[in-house]
Amino acid sequence: MKDMIDLTVPTWDNVLEAHERIRPHIHRTPVLTSSVLNRLTGAELFFKCENFQKAGAFKVRGASNAVFGLSDAEAARGVATHSSGNHALSLSYAAGRRGIPCHVVMPRTAPQAKKDAVRGYGGVITECEPSTSSREEVFAKVQSETGADFVHPYNDPRVIAGQATCSRELLEQVEGLDAIVAPIGGGGMVSGTCLTLSSIAPNVKVYAAEPEQADDAARSFRAGHIIADDAPSTVADGLKVPLKDLTWHFVSRHVTDILTASEQEIVDAMRLTWARLKIVMEPSSAVPLATILKNPELFRGQRVGVVVTGGNVDLDRLPWL
Amino acid sequence: MKDMIDLTVPTWDNVLEAHERIRPHIHRTPVLTSSVLNRLTGAELFFKCENFQKAGAFKVRGASNAVFGLSDAEAARGVATHSSGNHALSLSYAAGRRGIPCHVVMPRTAPQAKKDAVRGYGGVITECEPSTSSREEVFAKVQSETGADFVHPYNDPRVIAGQATCSRELLEQVEGLDAIVAPIGGGGMVSGTCLTLSSIAPNVKVYAAEPEQADDAARSFRAGHIIADDAPSTVADGLKVPLKDLTWHFVSRHVTDILTASEQEIVDAMRLTWARLKIVMEPSSAVPLATILKNPELFRGQRVGVVVTGGNVDLDRLPWL
Repeated sequence: MKDMIDLTVPTWDNVLEAHERIRPHIHRTPVLTSSVLNRLTGAELFFKCENFQKAGAFKVRGASNAVFGLSDAEAARGVATHSSGNHALSLSYAAGRRGIPCHVVMPRTAPQAKKDAVRGYGGVITECEPSTSSREEVFAKVQSETGADFVHPYNDPRVIAGQATCSRELLEQVEGLDAIVAPIGGGGMVSGTCLTLSSIAPNVKVYAAEPEQADDAARSFRAGHIIADDAPSTVADGLKVPLKDLTWHFVSRHVTDILTASEQEIVDAMRLTWARLKIVMEPSSAVPLATILKNPELFRGQRVGVVVTGGNVDLDRLPWL
Repeated sequence: MKDMIDLTVPTWDNVLEAHERIRPHIHRTPVLTSSVLNRLTGAELFFKCENFQKAGAFKVRGASNAVFGLSDAEAARGVATHSSGNHALSLSYAAGRRGIPCHVVMPRTAPQAKKDAVRGYGGVITECEPSTSSREEVFAKVQSETGADFVHPYNDPRVIAGQATCSRELLEQVEGLDAIVAPIGGGGMVSGTCLTLSSIAPNVKVYAAEPEQADDAARSFRAGHIIADDAPSTVADGLKVPLKDLTWHFVSRHVTDILTASEQEIVDAMRLTWARLKIVMEPSSAVPLATILKNPELFRGQRVGVVVTGGNVDLDRLPWL
């Protein structure tokens, strides 16, 4: 599969190209602040609201970069991916805008709202079991049948270059940041953040935030090599997937630290953000604030960007109810 | 009481003064759009997100204008009000920033979260029954005991001039608007909108949106005089209060029409906005979209500003669950 072959590391020039390419298809999302959350953390927090992004998540940046970077001949065969949800939505959205097919392999346990949304954007879903191994097996079959271009959810240089545009915008929107905290699952957003900061703001720290119950990235970081768990369980369902070689390249070189939070801490931070910032966001997006609240000494007195990665949540099943 | 005495109609100059006065104390809130909501309505909708405002609602504009317009001698005696919630939060916030007392009469049935928030900003609450008559009776007693300056939730020229800054910002943020739709309870936001539009954008229509179950403003509008109901029941709990002379002045002269929506239509529009715009907002704030969905012929092909008035909702009691 392509993610095992294409080890091209994206560059800052690729980010600039990506930003030009995707600009017509994405929102420049706003940054929100809350004096109450600042008081609670002792830091100045700047929430980059990718929950307001097209298709409801930052993933539309990378997906659009991949889709709109294809030649017409490549595009005609369509795109394909496996995803826990938001990448599937985003790739379907981008493919729909280009008018090409999008094939999606999704866990059968993914929220019904996400499946409906993928189909709403015209994506064609093939279901798999909720494990990395089943996902990859089913996907290989779908791809060989369609010949579509594989756009991996994160281990793809086009995707990482696209995600990197988020922190580029954040740096333009907020002066004097000391750190950026982003959730980590497979590491696409964190890799993009590393790419941008190491290129144009090398003094800004990058923290990755991860659920304790899916802490493979934190354990990888400490061990010095990738550790992958099959099918971990966490309310932050966007963060269950493991690092791959390309995201490991960035995470191992540029991340300051990987911080973790418990399920209860994640849910508490999610409810707190809904109550104070008045935004609808996914459990995954609450992990950064949970880790900041848990490690106040790391952030006190600092200006901290927080990436709110997505807003696609099932409003009938809120985790605090 | 002061709302029966001070009939001074605020002018555009008062709005400009108000905006300068309150600017350090409020957010310039962002405007959000959703292509899905545009498709559903056939209009271009621009949501002015006052749910992101300080204290969680547009009411901080009027409250701050009143508080920061007081002389030092007046301010020393504090401010007082009765409110269904957001004005109480906002006045407490503004008084807290000026370091003066704020006395609040609130219905005992107001959401606990709103009472906690008022106290969190340092407001002192005296409870009344959930009717207009009880509220006014208890308030008169509180005011005579404290000598505080009465800041009515809406029937006060300082408050209306403050609320008018919201549509002034919206006109700066979005070019070529055809109409603005705002919820109507007592009419403070709608009056401010009328004041701004009649002053600097007289071709932009003003629609007021009201719950069917608290449609006293719509009936007043058709009858040509104020009709007040005591204690109507609606999920849009910020919209239960009646028009007063000053808001009637604006509503009767400048509003294009008052549209109503059922309880179910309001809850559906609220859930739809949460799902698509990814924002936390109150039921009251969903009434405009409910009326737009119900009257597509009025808005099709037009550029429509929608005032999202506030985000102070009890996250443990969502009306669709």
